[in-house]
Amino acid sequence: MTETLKQTGAAATATTWLADFESALESADADAVARLFGEDCYWRDLVAFTWNIVTVEGRDGVRDLVAETARRVRAHDFRIADDLGGAAEGDGVVESWIAFETSVGRCVGHLRLRGGVAWTLLTTMNELIGHEEPLAGRRPKGAEHGANPDRKTWLEQRREEAEQLGRTTQPHTLVVGGGQGGIALGARLRQLGVPTIVVERSARAGDAWRNRYKSLCLHDPVWYDHLPYLDFPKNWPVFAPKDKIGDWLEMYARVMELNYWTSTEALSASYDAEAHEWTVVVRRDGEEITLRPKELVLATGMSGKANVPVFEGAAVFRGDQHHSSAHPGPDAYRGKRAVVIGSNNSAHDICAALWENDVDVTMVQRTSTHIVRSDSLMRIALGGLYSEEAVAAGMTTQKADLTFASLPYRIMHEFQIPVYDEIRKVDAEFYARLERAGFLLDYGDDDSGLFMKYLRRGSGYYIDVGASDLVANGDIKLRSGVDVVRLTEDSVVLSTGEELPADLVVYATGYGSMNGWAADLISQEVADAVGKVWGLGSATTKDPGPWEGEQRNMWKPTRQEALWFHGGNLHQSRHYSLYLALQLKARHEGIPTPVYGLPEVHHTS
Amino acid sequence: MTETLKQTGAAATATTWLADFESALESADADAVARLFGEDCYWRDLVAFTWNIVTVEGRDGVRDLVAETARRVRAHDFRIADDLGGAAEGDGVVESWIAFETSVGRCVGHLRLRGGVAWTLLTTMNELIGHEEPLAGRRPKGAEHGANPDRKTWLEQRREEAEQLGRTTQPHTLVVGGGQGGIALGARLRQLGVPTIVVERSARAGDAWRNRYKSLCLHDPVWYDHLPYLDFPKNWPVFAPKDKIGDWLEMYARVMELNYWTSTEALSASYDAEAHEWTVVVRRDGEEITLRPKELVLATGMSGKANVPVFEGAAVFRGDQHHSSAHPGPDAYRGKRAVVIGSNNSAHDICAALWENDVDVTMVQRTSTHIVRSDSLMRIALGGLYSEEAVAAGMTTQKADLTFASLPYRIMHEFQIPVYDEIRKVDAEFYARLERAGFLLDYGDDDSGLFMKYLRRGSGYYIDVGASDLVANGDIKLRSGVDVVRLTEDSVVLSTGEELPADLVVYATGYGSMNGWAADLISQEVADAVGKVWGLGSATTKDPGPWEGEQRNMWKPTRQEALWFHGGNLHQSRHYSLYLALQLKARHEGIPTPVYGLPEVHHTS
Repeated sequence: MTETLKQTGAAATATTWLADFESALESADADAVARLFGEDCYWRDLVAFTWNIVTVEGRDGVRDLVAETARRVRAHDFRIADDLGGAAEGDGVVESWIAFETSVGRCVGHLRLRGGVAWTLLTTMNELIGHEEPLAGRRPKGAEHGANPDRKTWLEQRREEAEQLGRTTQPHTLVVGGGQGGIALGARLRQLGVPTIVVERSARAGDAWRNRYKSLCLHDPVWYDHLPYLDFPKNWPVFAPKDKIGDWLEMYARVMELNYWTSTEALSASYDAEAHEWTVVVRRDGEEITLRPKELVLATGMSGKANVPVFEGAAVFRGDQHHSSAHPGPDAYRGKRAVVIGSNNSAHDICAALWENDVDVTMVQRTSTHIVRSDSLMRIALGGLYSEEAVAAGMTTQKADLTFASLPYRIMHEFQIPVYDEIRKVDAEFYARLERAGFLLDYGDDDSGLFMKYLRRGSGYYIDVGASDLVANGDIKLRSGVDVVRLTEDSVVLSTGEELPADLVVYATGYGSMNGWAADLISQEVADAVGKVWGLGSATTKDPGPWEGEQRNMWKPTRQEALWFHGGNLHQSRHYSLYLALQLKARHEGIPTPVYGLPEVHHTS
Repeated sequence: MTETLKQTGAAATATTWLADFESALESADADAVARLFGEDCYWRDLVAFTWNIVTVEGRDGVRDLVAETARRVRAHDFRIADDLGGAAEGDGVVESWIAFETSVGRCVGHLRLRGGVAWTLLTTMNELIGHEEPLAGRRPKGAEHGANPDRKTWLEQRREEAEQLGRTTQPHTLVVGGGQGGIALGARLRQLGVPTIVVERSARAGDAWRNRYKSLCLHDPVWYDHLPYLDFPKNWPVFAPKDKIGDWLEMYARVMELNYWTSTEALSASYDAEAHEWTVVVRRDGEEITLRPKELVLATGMSGKANVPVFEGAAVFRGDQHHSSAHPGPDAYRGKRAVVIGSNNSAHDICAALWENDVDVTMVQRTSTHIVRSDSLMRIALGGLYSEEAVAAGMTTQKADLTFASLPYRIMHEFQIPVYDEIRKVDAEFYARLERAGFLLDYGDDDSGLFMKYLRRGSGYYIDVGASDLVANGDIKLRSGVDVVRLTEDSVVLSTGEELPADLVVYATGYGSMNGWAADLISQEVADAVGKVWGLGSATTKDPGPWEGEQRNMWKPTRQEALWFHGGNLHQSRHYSLYLALQLKARHEGIPTPVYGLPEVHHTS
């Protein structure tokens, strides 16, 4: 490592630790590495050491990771990453941004030292050496200067590629699902030169957003939502309306030159383990086409497969009934009576829009819900990393993403609990009003709030943008702590015996595990082999143990060779598409990718 | 002004000058202000003082500007703009970025002092107080929180606006021409809340680029080409192919929510000086619609109206003949013989593409041409302001634009001559080869090179991306210093008597003055009253005197009330659309806009 003169105390401490770490890694001395960590320690690796997304815990975990990976990874040139923010000390913790290289990649990360030993370490691959993205100083020239009788224009090349790929040439990677996840990944793979097709069943990119209920706006703010390579413009709304996001995704897919097949449904897929190749049949504009990609990514959405409960009497109900994902908005129901079953984000948004359109609407809350006011969430929970103030203070999207990633999931709730304690204090009157209206509140099993609920189960909350006031004042009628027993021709019957007259029933009842998509497309056997997708194994509601340390099956190798799951909110689609793209690129280039720490499957759904 | 402690020498000098300047302006003491300037001095004002784009020269000029404007402008709070780069000293010149306010606007600028007095001063309006653009911290919220029975979604509002504007409501501003100029201006006016329609005769935004010859790529690099609010992505090519720019403009117009009418031709326009209103008849998708805007902007392109010479025999020529703007590319001419009349950018690009496609091609060079190799232009002329290196060194687009704007046109050539001297030295062998092939070279009347030619006449050069080698080695045949006398059925006859057999004749003969558009659309009287558009009055080739100090009629009031010209390259479309938009916004809001320095008209075309 290069000697840096006149380092501050924090930088000197970090530099010393990194030198010791590098030296112990060099000799693959797992014990020596483990001694550099505290008893209570976490090493989170995103692809750099493990070709996986893994957090190991404790010295035993560190020892195991080093023993399995150090010799082949040959990590070296560890240094403080000043461009990310250097090193600093506070509350007895020395924090440092770090950079290093492996035999195949350039990597960045983050280190927290307590008492001279590591408490948390984040290591992430940032680019493959020799396969850098053509950005900024490496951007393509565009005009091919000089004279060349075989010249093809950009348009001719694009058209030729679009005509041939999937017909006379095969994509290396097929991405099923063209929402923000598939689009962000497609953009990264395009930069990396991995031939890719993204198939989307809708007629236009962005339709997955356009087709949702008409009042929908993003619940996450613009700073949290940027896609790779192209930030939203300076005039983009804080919470973008769904149709505007739809237009942006459509534009982005075109500007990024994706091979994006609209009106294309994936019908079936099977894997030939000897040929290491998928056979995927799709229907594109009515025509069946067989594709033979090496890698298959399901980006059909963690909120993809609707959970629709089947109640007695559903067949005799004469009004409209549909899952929230199919709800067209309130226009057709003016003056009518609606029952919305569920009490999370979609339920609230739909109830509010119905009320605004003179619908008599009742929300049926079966279990408790976590509610955070949007303003409080922005200010107290997100503002430090994702806000106009954070941007002004020099917080880049990359740095914010890595900061968030640097907190191991095992202890993340400890950082979250005080945030929601603060929010409960600030918004005490708001919560009291809701409770007086009978609304069942929770803040997560351990009071760790919204992000942990999202990461553990992807559900159970509402970011309040106005509907809670309607619930509190009775404009949206509430039945809480009850269940639905059955439907009649014109009503919903509750477990209390009460009968709610209804012209419309909306099932705002959430979504199943993404491996359900694998069952539909491939087989139940493969879906079961892969197991549950999403969640941490936190042994909290809807996230059964044992502890996994990372989100199950997301953005990393699964128990089915060459099958991947990708998705999440815009933040995750942006950040984790990088690591998934690097894993796919390495396979495309034939770079060895020995996977460390492929977990056991404990749940099939 | 706020006192800044411990200022450097340069900052102290600038601060003192600004304080004296402010005090002299406050008392509207024109002589006192003039004494703060050197004998040899320039004050360039973009809208801030003059509601015009004006450079005054010498103390008399300063005195006149102050006498006419100071009392009503009430400029105050002058300070060094540290966010733009503060103050510095070098070569005996103190340079400082400055900021100040007027009674209606927030302004920025740049100051150069020599011997304690001003040599150059740039003052520019940046925003109107109370009418700030909704950017960054002011961006719209998007989601309208709370419950509102009259709520309309973003999509419903957009559709309603699009349906009503031009039908039941009238645009304040009508922009004729939807290329980069019209689109950039439309985006700015949208942010400023000025109801605007942009009409474009093509079927899609971007078609003006798509429909040009197929090998065309931008000759300016990406860093020079960003549009307002949304930079090109990090992976954008240095020199974007025309179809890719077309796609970008189309997406940009949509994302920026322009009221952009495609397939719409402006048929006629007339101004009612009493009602202060235009009557403009357009044909949209075949339907005639009468619009009544208050302001009319012609953004039909400084390269809009083709100059087509009429040669004897043109009617009997049996091959294809067309202006370069209508050239479809080489595909149909493989194995045939082409004569390209002209030797500027389009001529070279078209000749090269024809040669690449096995066409026997001859370039007819009638007068000398300025040639710069693209690489040299990027490195030596543009790199300091517009390059990846400049970006890495903290050069923002705003700062680069203002730096370029800070050099008065009267002395700009003095800064340009050494640049082209350097280029001639570096590329001496290249130029020698061209001359040996008979090519007639020039570097501008005063050897000031490409930018001055662009600003003075908008023509007379080629940025070499490869065709010059083909000319030098004879692959593109050259006839130079000759004129075309006539066409026969199958040939072009030159002034030397030589007859060039031809299946295709391309007139790469440039474009006329933009007021020709006003003649077509409004009347010859109005076109003549407005006079020549573009050029500085430099008394060099194709830019007759007298000296104007600014480009004629561009982005500023003309001799026809409520008629404006907008356009230029992407840099100008981006930067000067700001000042044009502020002038239009002020008129829309009824803010008084007394114009200082409306020039006399000296040329009608």
